[in-house]
Amino acid sequence: MAFKLAKYLPIIDWGRRYKGETFVNDGIAAVIVTIMLIPQSLAYALLAGLPPQVGLYASILPLVAYAIFGTSRAMAVGPVAVISLMTAVAAGKIAAQGTPEYIAVALLLALISGLMLLVMGLFRLGFIANFLSHPVISGFITASGLLIAVSQLKHILGVSASGHNLIEMLHALVTSLPQTNFPTLIIGVVSTAFLFWVRRGMKPLLMKVGLSDRLASIGTKIGPVIAVVIAIIVVASLGLADRGVNIVGNIPKGLPSLSVPEFDLELWRSLLASSLIIAVIGFVESISVAQTLAAKRRQRIDPDQELIGLGAANVAGAFSGGYPVTGGFARSAVNFDAGAETPAAGAMTAIGIALATLFLTPLLYFLPIATLAATIIVAVLSLVNIADIRQAWAYSKADFAAMIATIIVTLTVGVEAGVLSGVVLSIALFLYRSSRPHFAIVGQVRDTEHFRNIARHNVITNPKVLTLRIDKSLYFANARYMEDAIYDLIYNKPEIEHVILMCSAVNDVDFSALESLEAINERLATANIKFHLSEVKGPVMDRLEKSHLLSQLTGAVHLSQLDAIKATSGTSHGTELDFHL
Amino acid sequence: MAFKLAKYLPIIDWGRRYKGETFVNDGIAAVIVTIMLIPQSLAYALLAGLPPQVGLYASILPLVAYAIFGTSRAMAVGPVAVISLMTAVAAGKIAAQGTPEYIAVALLLALISGLMLLVMGLFRLGFIANFLSHPVISGFITASGLLIAVSQLKHILGVSASGHNLIEMLHALVTSLPQTNFPTLIIGVVSTAFLFWVRRGMKPLLMKVGLSDRLASIGTKIGPVIAVVIAIIVVASLGLADRGVNIVGNIPKGLPSLSVPEFDLELWRSLLASSLIIAVIGFVESISVAQTLAAKRRQRIDPDQELIGLGAANVAGAFSGGYPVTGGFARSAVNFDAGAETPAAGAMTAIGIALATLFLTPLLYFLPIATLAATIIVAVLSLVNIADIRQAWAYSKADFAAMIATIIVTLTVGVEAGVLSGVVLSIALFLYRSSRPHFAIVGQVRDTEHFRNIARHNVITNPKVLTLRIDKSLYFANARYMEDAIYDLIYNKPEIEHVILMCSAVNDVDFSALESLEAINERLATANIKFHLSEVKGPVMDRLEKSHLLSQLTGAVHLSQLDAIKATSGTSHGTELDFHL
Repeated sequence: MAFKLAKYLPIIDWGRRYKGETFVNDGIAAVIVTIMLIPQSLAYALLAGLPPQVGLYASILPLVAYAIFGTSRAMAVGPVAVISLMTAVAAGKIAAQGTPEYIAVALLLALISGLMLLVMGLFRLGFIANFLSHPVISGFITASGLLIAVSQLKHILGVSASGHNLIEMLHALVTSLPQTNFPTLIIGVVSTAFLFWVRRGMKPLLMKVGLSDRLASIGTKIGPVIAVVIAIIVVASLGLADRGVNIVGNIPKGLPSLSVPEFDLELWRSLLASSLIIAVIGFVESISVAQTLAAKRRQRIDPDQELIGLGAANVAGAFSGGYPVTGGFARSAVNFDAGAETPAAGAMTAIGIALATLFLTPLLYFLPIATLAATIIVAVLSLVNIADIRQAWAYSKADFAAMIATIIVTLTVGVEAGVLSGVVLSIALFLYRSSRPHFAIVGQVRDTEHFRNIARHNVITNPKVLTLRIDKSLYFANARYMEDAIYDLIYNKPEIEHVILMCSAVNDVDFSALESLEAINERLATANIKFHLSEVKGPVMDRLEKSHLLSQLTGAVHLSQLDAIKATSGTSHGTELDFHL
Repeated sequence: MAFKLAKYLPIIDWGRRYKGETFVNDGIAAVIVTIMLIPQSLAYALLAGLPPQVGLYASILPLVAYAIFGTSRAMAVGPVAVISLMTAVAAGKIAAQGTPEYIAVALLLALISGLMLLVMGLFRLGFIANFLSHPVISGFITASGLLIAVSQLKHILGVSASGHNLIEMLHALVTSLPQTNFPTLIIGVVSTAFLFWVRRGMKPLLMKVGLSDRLASIGTKIGPVIAVVIAIIVVASLGLADRGVNIVGNIPKGLPSLSVPEFDLELWRSLLASSLIIAVIGFVESISVAQTLAAKRRQRIDPDQELIGLGAANVAGAFSGGYPVTGGFARSAVNFDAGAETPAAGAMTAIGIALATLFLTPLLYFLPIATLAATIIVAVLSLVNIADIRQAWAYSKADFAAMIATIIVTLTVGVEAGVLSGVVLSIALFLYRSSRPHFAIVGQVRDTEHFRNIARHNVITNPKVLTLRIDKSLYFANARYMEDAIYDLIYNKPEIEHVILMCSAVNDVDFSALESLEAINERLATANIKFHLSEVKGPVMDRLEKSHLLSQLTGAVHLSQLDAIKATSGTSHGTELDFHL
């Protein structure tokens, strides 16, 4: 029992061995992550179309829940860009931004996707995430990055413009250009330029003043905080809020109130698809972060337990005024670099954010929205991965097609349609490819026991015997292809008396393929051709023994291809056979 | 050009060599098939909810079109039971039986599914049919057979009762039992009993009177005609039509008028899904019949050309008052046994049916519906294949699950939902199974160059080197499983310095799997473990050379596993290595 509990509550394991030294390390990491997380939480809430405090709330209890249930030592969960965009899209379909219903829907999305993750974890359904192929995820993230960046341009310009896809957004931006607010534009452009410089120029500078590589990396991540502080001071001292610069304004002070999301069956049902996509995309992102960090210290990540950890984080967020969260790469890397040793660092970060919501919010009153938009733009442009598109093109045209389809549909139709069409296309392409398995007509390499493709090697064959080596497992999508291939090969060849199927590469024969083998056997029998199998693997043979195929087989099952040739040719020596190039 | 034309018009090929002797043989087969097809056409039109003449019309031009475009020498196309049921379901969703709209929708279904088949044939998309796995088709046919049989019981009882699924049908039958018409019931039961006897007892009887096995088989197929003739005589002479026995009544005399189906975009769109299912199910049935017959004479079936032949048949039917058709097994076997040598037999059958519509229809006036229903019931009960369900259970639980799900959904929800849920479940189960590929930790068999699973063989391993043999191609659905497996294996093993992935069974590495290999390489590098590949196949290596993996690989790619062991252990001899059970 205790063992089982520790599996589902990793905190028992690491908590038992928790030491004072670890506490100090976790604490330092927590302080740094907290400082980094405050502007991020506000910015991603803005992106999700939610009030700024919702971003902060989503960074408190979810972190505590993950600290209890998660297996990654250094992962920092909280609001992230792509999930915030998906929340905005899903909630926007049900209610208008700025309404209480919209906030309630965002909460419900966290709850439902959290519950889905919990169920997937408990029933070990994590493999569902495998159906998101890399081209689909990569294409989706790239397209989302572009969409998010464009969606923030309105805040840089200080105009109101909205749209559900790239074309609509660009159109709205262009038509609202004349309304540009210049003080906002200046703040936005300067913030963006500064943040880009932080990414590129700050680390070398910090290293020049003597900081170590690690500390300089961490320092770079504090860049957005510097931008936020300067922007607040400028806006407040120059009275820019009165000149049309949008500011964050009043953020309710204090901790979120615990609340129970409403249960409306119709509403839940309408959110199921969106919640599933949010859950799966969030999990894929998060597990990738967790595994990257864990491998550095040869630590272990249990994907099923990660589902539970992430699920618990989202459910906790849903009960404390938050919205969907997942593991973020940038902040988890900072947490790791800053020395976090256990999930306790996450819990301490939660305390930091809680303190910020209690005492810091009045200071954020004059924070210009344009600066938050700048932090989003700079963050998400790093998501756009053009190199990956080029590599996909070079590597595999099918994967490239899936990636491009995902990008185009995401940009022009929407994020959910983009993911779904990518998944469907990936599966269809995979099935198509595996429905045409490679097979070869083989002959015996002279003076050896080896059999090779007659198209590539100078081998000996017997015109009475046709041997086919199939290079893939047989299942419903390729069984008929094999049937057609065999019928084609015997067509107009009255000399053939034996067909041997060499199964050395066949790991599985499903019921459809069994049916095809039986059909081949029967149909060859009506044409007076004996059908043989050779080199059938153990597990496949175990299966076939449960069927009627073996008893009905007109030929035999031969342990080796050599045995098959001996049995069908009445000789073991190639010399008596005809030659074939 | 001529060569190409002959590919798309097989008639050019066989027509050129057509001889008088062949004409006689084809003609005899055509007469027998015509006699068999008349009651079948009427019965299946009844099953489809269409007037009897539509069944006859569907047996004229479609046969001519198939004779021109089809590749099977002996296949007889026309109305069949399962497709008739699917037509009734699809048309019933749009219009009420007995209305002109209903007939128009049936026509449109033939047109759209015919066009789909043509497109699939021209673009070589026949592989789409492969996604109907054998358990799904078998389950679907069994369930359809049950549904059809039950749906005909109302005609045997002489009551009106309808329903969209088995439960509704049975309920309607039971509540309408008190309305049973006894003369109808007697005709129905006697017809059914007679037809069952024909199936079992007539062939031995015919052989006893001296007929050959082949002639006796053909004679058996004429059984339904005998039932029809006797039933007509009984009903007409006893005046049973006045005692409540439903009869076929007046069938319009003469050939169908050529008509152009209406084009209503909304209506077409609503029929797309149903048409696709009818097209694919029809094709799967038909190709199976064609291949069975062709194999007996070592003839060749071109599946893509079969799509064109079947598509042309359906389009021809749509322009001449018919409804969806496909190749029927029973009548094709009769055609074959009766000696049909070329598709000309089909064209002659069409002439026979045309003559019947011109001159025979008045004789069918008194034909009782109950006798037609009996022919349907006896025919479809042979579709119910309980043995196959039992075999699926014995052979593979996953295939059994797909089969049972198809049967249950078809019976309780409907035919289209049944097929779709079966297809989705088959694909999901396949992806699930292939997402957990078998892999083995391998070691060297002492004093050999062979490497085997350490769990099964007594082999030598080096604790610094971990070799994994993966037994499947790597792609998106299983790549992360492999990643997890490798991370699990290095966890808490600080002694490991090298990980070798033995790729002897890997036929393909898609872009997602490449990403996983790169991630493994990077993550192992951070843990100071070198990552190697061994026994990579040629085509896979060609692919990998287009990626960054090989240049970034911390280890190397080794031609053989032995080379890999030599390179990583600094020795070629097992004797210096530790032993491992």
